[in-house]
Amino acid sequence: MIKICIYGGSGYTGEELLRLLLAHPEAQVVSITSRRFAGVPVAEVYPVFVGQTDLVFTDEKPEVLGNSADLVFLALPHGVSMGVAPIFLEAGKKVIDLSADFRIRDIAVYESWYRKHTAAALIEEAVYGLPELYRDRIRNARLLANPGCYPTSVILGLAPALRSGLIEPSSVIADSKSGVSGSGREPQIASLFCEVAEGFKAYKVEGHRHIPEMEQELGILAGRQMTISFVPHLLPVKRGILTTLYGKLVKDIGAEEVLEIYRKFYGKEPFVRIYRAGQFPNISSVAGSNFCDIGVTIDKRTGRLIAVTAIDNLVKGASGQAIQNMNLMCNLPEETGLPRTGLYP
Amino acid sequence: MIKICIYGGSGYTGEELLRLLLAHPEAQVVSITSRRFAGVPVAEVYPVFVGQTDLVFTDEKPEVLGNSADLVFLALPHGVSMGVAPIFLEAGKKVIDLSADFRIRDIAVYESWYRKHTAAALIEEAVYGLPELYRDRIRNARLLANPGCYPTSVILGLAPALRSGLIEPSSVIADSKSGVSGSGREPQIASLFCEVAEGFKAYKVEGHRHIPEMEQELGILAGRQMTISFVPHLLPVKRGILTTLYGKLVKDIGAEEVLEIYRKFYGKEPFVRIYRAGQFPNISSVAGSNFCDIGVTIDKRTGRLIAVTAIDNLVKGASGQAIQNMNLMCNLPEETGLPRTGLYP
Amino acid sequence: MIKICIYGGSGYTGEELLRLLLAHPEAQVVSITSRRFAGVPVAEVYPVFVGQTDLVFTDEKPEVLGNSADLVFLALPHGVSMGVAPIFLEAGKKVIDLSADFRIRDIAVYESWYRKHTAAALIEEAVYGLPELYRDRIRNARLLANPGCYPTSVILGLAPALRSGLIEPSSVIADSKSGVSGSGREPQIASLFCEVAEGFKAYKVEGHRHIPEMEQELGILAGRQMTISFVPHLLPVKRGILTTLYGKLVKDIGAEEVLEIYRKFYGKEPFVRIYRAGQFPNISSVAGSNFCDIGVTIDKRTGRLIAVTAIDNLVKGASGQAIQNMNLMCNLPEETGLPRTGLYP
Amino acid sequence: MIKICIYGGSGYTGEELLRLLLAHPEAQVVSITSRRFAGVPVAEVYPVFVGQTDLVFTDEKPEVLGNSADLVFLALPHGVSMGVAPIFLEAGKKVIDLSADFRIRDIAVYESWYRKHTAAALIEEAVYGLPELYRDRIRNARLLANPGCYPTSVILGLAPALRSGLIEPSSVIADSKSGVSGSGREPQIASLFCEVAEGFKAYKVEGHRHIPEMEQELGILAGRQMTISFVPHLLPVKRGILTTLYGKLVKDIGAEEVLEIYRKFYGKEPFVRIYRAGQFPNISSVAGSNFCDIGVTIDKRTGRLIAVTAIDNLVKGASGQAIQNMNLMCNLPEETGLPRTGLYP
Repeated sequence: MIKICIYGGSGYTGEELLRLLLAHPEAQVVSITSRRFAGVPVAEVYPVFVGQTDLVFTDEKPEVLGNSADLVFLALPHGVSMGVAPIFLEAGKKVIDLSADFRIRDIAVYESWYRKHTAAALIEEAVYGLPELYRDRIRNARLLANPGCYPTSVILGLAPALRSGLIEPSSVIADSKSGVSGSGREPQIASLFCEVAEGFKAYKVEGHRHIPEMEQELGILAGRQMTISFVPHLLPVKRGILTTLYGKLVKDIGAEEVLEIYRKFYGKEPFVRIYRAGQFPNISSVAGSNFCDIGVTIDKRTGRLIAVTAIDNLVKGASGQAIQNMNLMCNLPEETGLPRTGLYP
Repeated sequence: MIKICIYGGSGYTGEELLRLLLAHPEAQVVSITSRRFAGVPVAEVYPVFVGQTDLVFTDEKPEVLGNSADLVFLALPHGVSMGVAPIFLEAGKKVIDLSADFRIRDIAVYESWYRKHTAAALIEEAVYGLPELYRDRIRNARLLANPGCYPTSVILGLAPALRSGLIEPSSVIADSKSGVSGSGREPQIASLFCEVAEGFKAYKVEGHRHIPEMEQELGILAGRQMTISFVPHLLPVKRGILTTLYGKLVKDIGAEEVLEIYRKFYGKEPFVRIYRAGQFPNISSVAGSNFCDIGVTIDKRTGRLIAVTAIDNLVKGASGQAIQNMNLMCNLPEETGLPRTGLYP
Repeated sequence: MIKICIYGGSGYTGEELLRLLLAHPEAQVVSITSRRFAGVPVAEVYPVFVGQTDLVFTDEKPEVLGNSADLVFLALPHGVSMGVAPIFLEAGKKVIDLSADFRIRDIAVYESWYRKHTAAALIEEAVYGLPELYRDRIRNARLLANPGCYPTSVILGLAPALRSGLIEPSSVIADSKSGVSGSGREPQIASLFCEVAEGFKAYKVEGHRHIPEMEQELGILAGRQMTISFVPHLLPVKRGILTTLYGKLVKDIGAEEVLEIYRKFYGKEPFVRIYRAGQFPNISSVAGSNFCDIGVTIDKRTGRLIAVTAIDNLVKGASGQAIQNMNLMCNLPEETGLPRTGLYP
Repeated sequence: MIKICIYGGSGYTGEELLRLLLAHPEAQVVSITSRRFAGVPVAEVYPVFVGQTDLVFTDEKPEVLGNSADLVFLALPHGVSMGVAPIFLEAGKKVIDLSADFRIRDIAVYESWYRKHTAAALIEEAVYGLPELYRDRIRNARLLANPGCYPTSVILGLAPALRSGLIEPSSVIADSKSGVSGSGREPQIASLFCEVAEGFKAYKVEGHRHIPEMEQELGILAGRQMTISFVPHLLPVKRGILTTLYGKLVKDIGAEEVLEIYRKFYGKEPFVRIYRAGQFPNISSVAGSNFCDIGVTIDKRTGRLIAVTAIDNLVKGASGQAIQNMNLMCNLPEETGLPRTGLYP
């Protein structure tokens, strides 16, 4: 039984970690923290847990929490994880960080999009936690940088095309649409029901902080530096990201051939599903599950590859992927405890 | 391994049975029928199942399907089950019927709300599948009448009060609100997104066919015949029924005492959660789970008991409860394979 | 042209006042206040107004604002209006208060549900602004207490029945369901999209502050003091209140006769629509309009009257009704500038 | 008073025409047709009209209907209008066709995307009803081809850029997201609430029939033939289309300069609003209004222009634009009777 601390547990990714870990046969959550709700039973903040757990939010220090845990999930805002991770690592704990703090290899790039980094020495050691690309390194990771939600949807959708040189890297456009849970649980006007329902908008059109993470990983896949156009949008749904990807084909190729390249690339991946020709995913088919569903085709008239990916931003885009990484880091079968069939309708 | 046939599997309750049974460790779905989708893979009709099952909808006759199954779920319209159940029963199969056909003891009552009954001989044998009330008889049932969604939410909310004589039976009012999945998957204007979203209405105000089922069971609990006022409403959500129940108190009693009666009545029931004083459930806390959550209090100013119940109409209100009954009928631990923590947010 | 100040204009009722008044041929909004958004153009806070108005939120004092306005709408929290209304009244302005501060005749009752009243001397003068009941007094009002949203839906639904002695006053139950805009635009967790969408709950089951307002007006209609059971619920929609009303009939009467009583009571009321037999309203049929739609029938089996009312909580439940009152107070045709056909779908 | 026939009036565009025309001071709807609902009062099919109109759906022949009308709106499926329009034109009526039948200049192109054309002789005469581009010709039109919803959102978003040669025509990508009302009111599984709510998907990725219409008009603006990539998506909202447009800049230009080009292009257009720098529209800011809102910027890192447009698909994308065209064709002020401030929240 892996003893687990969820550090920063009152937001949606923390709550989703708890939900998934309660159903995990080899994990036991021993502590969950929250400053705002310190002393309040988790089941009072999230009634979905009534009768499921007696855990109470704590604001105990990392130094103390480390004593009872083998592995720590950091579900903290960007910039905060870098102060906490070193404490747990020094205490010999494995750390899975869901923030962006250890995702960007190039400190200058990190600091230009985020803020000054105070634990730069750890960046090199951190492993980027996309199992489909880095499975072997993840198995030995001590500090894992769990990917962002948008980057997961973009990278998985383009990896086969870029790795096989199908598309022109400078032509890539990623048009992403995310559910509201991606904005977290902080009370703010822009996340109110009345502001979101029956609405839809683009936001951060002039630059979203997930861009450097995408470009880093896409560039590795393409074998050269890349810049992409990325426009995120806010969907009036709770969960899910759907990303539509466009890239100029560099050769004459048919839709079936492209599909075959995608199928081969992902082979027996447990959490990637390639749709058959002419089919494209709906976020409602992955909500609640750890799948990334992918549909891909070519636009013959314009010579473009078009791929559509769908994930649950809280599962494959955050907490589910974090647990997939935990399984790998702890020598468990990778699928252990992860939901497969989503909730539909 | 229990071999299972889902007869009438293309609607939402059929799909939910499949979803739940795929995660059930002791059950194997061997066939699933649909006239409309005969020959089509289930995963094509419901992409949520891509990679999860190779099942293909069939329109094979009951006589043939019975050969490979131990137990059959009938997810059919009212009036159709009565023609199919006898065939499976004669073949020695256990039958769990999700329609209303075997719920009403009094044939005259059934026929006045529904239609002529063609298998009346089986009604006496059928067991009403509310485990909280009929657990022992369910264990030995051959033909199980799975309760309606509204009746489940009403009966569980009033059972402790009526059994203990807290309220005047003739004073009961049940104001229910249901998600749209309760209307099934038949294409009809009233279930279109544009007709439902941002809307809310009462319907069948002058009489809903679930009334005789409620009155039968409430009457048994009260120890005398009862009539109730029941108004169903259509919520712009996919899953969930919330019922607000009102009854005139016949004695002077405090909210805590009432709560205590409810807590004692349900004791260690695995799928009923009584909320603490002042707390009332939200359907989003049960969606995806088999729980019936109950909050109860008294309105001192008017001398009424007010109870609020929440269930997922597709789970505790249909397919989950059907599997709870299957577990009992097959001598499995009652909770086997049933979802506990719902999907939130 | 009536010169208007909207005092407290950044919330949804303030915004709705502005939306409606921009289309009003005899009104001109000359100022709109907000502390939080002082100095910000209204069109920036609410892009729906881009190109429609150059108004900028101000936090100018009432003493100054009064100079340029003939009539002031107070869209303020309960307890704040009582401090502001006297200033405008002294300056000779007409005041329409959308808070509860001047609705309750009995100061003790007001103070037991709200807080200490600091302008009690004005209560007697204030006119309760339900035109269907108090049209003549409204015409001469200087200080108008605009009704609450829930009370509007409850009082209009019961007025004909109580006035004609159809139902037993002590038997009244009001089960109300409101859209989220009723909670205002303050950022709070309970109003977040992820907390509300696909959810539904009862709240303030043990006492909502609109109760004394309802009981006061229902009591006047019944000709004797009344207590009612009132349970509000939160709907996952932006606009709309649907209230289902139950009352014990005191005589043997048919549904058509009841309908006739309702039709007669409301006669040519411009903003009440009585549905024909067997039809009941949907909030989506009134959203955006100033109508109160009413369906009514009897439950023969239990001897109850059941009425269902639907309003847009921001229009007939707040800002639309306020403008209807303004029209009356300013000798304009009552329907002037008020939306009739709502937005559907 | 213009006497109007709405031919094909039971769908959402027909209903929206009626809603808007009821508020139009110079128009009177004298007949509205529907085969399915022939004989049924409009207010019964759409309760939003209760008390607003006594119109009853008719299935009278065009030959008869023409007698009482000056102008006819055809709200018919593609392929049906071409059979009806000639009859009304011969009777001397003005015709505004909301289908695609008369939008495509090149019959071969029309026939390759739709079906055989049976009224080809009329195509040349038909005027494409985008007032921002063809105002003068619209004034004199006898047969008006009202633009498609997606094309309106795409063409208005790119017109200034293409006309001024800002972007490479072959680089254009249009990623569109539409509300469900665009799919009409026919009962079909894909439009059910349970299939749409909390979901989001791309559809017709491999070719949508609005493409030739877009390419025709964009090509005229660019001064050369164009092909574009267009991917439509289905949003879980009732109304609205948001389109995100990408094009490779052919020169070094700043965001403010681009904005200036857009502002100049649209000048005093009554129904186009250009947002200030850094601001982008939300469909909830145009829902219910006839506006097309546009935000535009450049992506410096990749050298692309990014424009975001928002319209209400039923208003500026269909019925509102049709009335704008009617106003022009009837020498009325262009804005007559058209809604400006949408319904928010």
